[in-house]
Amino acid sequence: MKATLIYGPRDVRSEERPDPKIIEPTDATIRISATCVCGSDLWPYRGVSPITQPTPMGHEYCGIVEEVGSQVINIKPGQFVVGSFFASDNSCPICRAGYQSRCVNSKPVGAEGAQAQWLRVPLADGTLVATPAIPPDDLIPSLLAASDVLGTGWFGAVAAEVGPGKTVAVVGDGAVGLLAVLAARQLGAERVIAMSRHEPRQRLAREFGATDIVTERGDEGVAKIKELTDGLGAHSTIEAVGTQQSMMQALRSTRPGGYIGYVGVPHGVGLPGDELFFAEVHLHGGPAPVRRFLPELIDLIWNRKIDPGKVFDLTLPLSEVAEGYRAMDERRAIKALLRP
Amino acid sequence: MKATLIYGPRDVRSEERPDPKIIEPTDATIRISATCVCGSDLWPYRGVSPITQPTPMGHEYCGIVEEVGSQVINIKPGQFVVGSFFASDNSCPICRAGYQSRCVNSKPVGAEGAQAQWLRVPLADGTLVATPAIPPDDLIPSLLAASDVLGTGWFGAVAAEVGPGKTVAVVGDGAVGLLAVLAARQLGAERVIAMSRHEPRQRLAREFGATDIVTERGDEGVAKIKELTDGLGAHSTIEAVGTQQSMMQALRSTRPGGYIGYVGVPHGVGLPGDELFFAEVHLHGGPAPVRRFLPELIDLIWNRKIDPGKVFDLTLPLSEVAEGYRAMDERRAIKALLRP
Repeated sequence: MKATLIYGPRDVRSEERPDPKIIEPTDATIRISATCVCGSDLWPYRGVSPITQPTPMGHEYCGIVEEVGSQVINIKPGQFVVGSFFASDNSCPICRAGYQSRCVNSKPVGAEGAQAQWLRVPLADGTLVATPAIPPDDLIPSLLAASDVLGTGWFGAVAAEVGPGKTVAVVGDGAVGLLAVLAARQLGAERVIAMSRHEPRQRLAREFGATDIVTERGDEGVAKIKELTDGLGAHSTIEAVGTQQSMMQALRSTRPGGYIGYVGVPHGVGLPGDELFFAEVHLHGGPAPVRRFLPELIDLIWNRKIDPGKVFDLTLPLSEVAEGYRAMDERRAIKALLRP
Repeated sequence: MKATLIYGPRDVRSEERPDPKIIEPTDATIRISATCVCGSDLWPYRGVSPITQPTPMGHEYCGIVEEVGSQVINIKPGQFVVGSFFASDNSCPICRAGYQSRCVNSKPVGAEGAQAQWLRVPLADGTLVATPAIPPDDLIPSLLAASDVLGTGWFGAVAAEVGPGKTVAVVGDGAVGLLAVLAARQLGAERVIAMSRHEPRQRLAREFGATDIVTERGDEGVAKIKELTDGLGAHSTIEAVGTQQSMMQALRSTRPGGYIGYVGVPHGVGLPGDELFFAEVHLHGGPAPVRRFLPELIDLIWNRKIDPGKVFDLTLPLSEVAEGYRAMDERRAIKALLRP
């Protein structure tokens, strides 16, 4: 099959690899209908995260189940499924509490690389969710988004306790930030302030339900949020970048007693204890337990209540994956969808 | 009147100062029935927080209202009152959300020093809560505890989302940590693990409802908490120290999806963003909004459901305040009560 490997900074290749097979009796193999490039894939691409050997890439996927292991009960060959980037048994105490991304038997699905034609998914019954039927082609981008970026933005909004009557600030205008705007709106936020300097992203933020746009960053961005909230700060802030600046911007944009949901994978972030203490906010985040939200998100997509697939503004054949990375790195594209 | 000033590290003096007077029309003056030395008073006493000039000390108090300003409506002369260490208007949006310690008009009560015979309290109506009648003498230590240490331990437990069926770990065996044990039990925790190496404090923790004692610290303490919780960590952890070690101990003792309430004033604490991210806990804390809890806590004390005054294991006349600091610094006393 065709698969994607990274060899070093800015060196992504589409190569032939053996088709995956069932290894554990709880595995499933799926024929991928669509996959994509994640903002977090850019960390190794840009050389920020080290690459020690050629590494399979990709952890977002949806597709048709080909084969299942002998212990797989609920997932059946022929179903169209969406799964999370962490395999989970969905039955341990941590999963039952809604934190499938930290399942005691958790395995990263991305280890074998989802930017490929086929994928082996461990713990299939606990990881995959089937759609009601084979979806029409136009729903596939949105279902793919549910696999990570939508689920992650949604988790950010839930972690930030977004709800009716609340003013929500979103730091970051990547696909996750934009879908956090969508999530905040769906969860009933009264006002959603998107922090974005890029006109096409501002437009999409508005389409997803942003009521205000703040183009300033850092201290000026914080001052603007305060100005829009009677000097108090947002009730809820979603951090979707993962840098020191974005984290401090989130911390300072939130009112005392307010909530921050942080879903940007942190790189070199350190939180000063005293500022955190006196900010008196709630802080929650981490790798999104996408599995918790999948049934609800699939339902919203299936019934065409939300259209998160709009974040894909570039579609390429899988063999041109390197161009997808380049376009996202250069901010020519928000998110690149790949068709095997 | 007699008041307490700190002149430098380990130099605390009882001195004559002018009696406080009403300055703002929202002020009240109170004749203090009991005050005490706080764990946080030891930071300047030990030279960790700098002292640039002789500074009035003390921020915990209860007593009889002497005089009120012209705009004070609910608080009346002759009432016995308990107040928080932050004056609050109790009516701004932040107060109404329960964060009176971050009231938009907040003023520190401690600025004038509560380790004294008299105290001026700003924003009296929003800061003070009257007891149903003049209390019997034996209730005064517990009512004094409500002013800070009980309210702070209680906030730690609330911030850590303590509730029925939960396993709670408490890091820190000072008065706040011990009262966090009491709070956890009152709030319905199934199991309360006190982390303490000091036998008299372990005993008090047991009296307050601790079901387990862990004497190990750091990584060994974390391992012990994991051992007691099927390898998962506590549902809720209360951090009541404020050092890097105690904060990391709290972070690592909590299961994914669990809650940390941190109430120890941080000194030199920095939270590594990546560890925080992958720990996937909820984090909340800060200066306790004691005013939020005062009516409930006074009610529990008045009806003798709780006896938080037990944390005072040393009682001194106000003039001997320096001995109170010494005894706490040397860990000869958990907490020193001062009688003016």
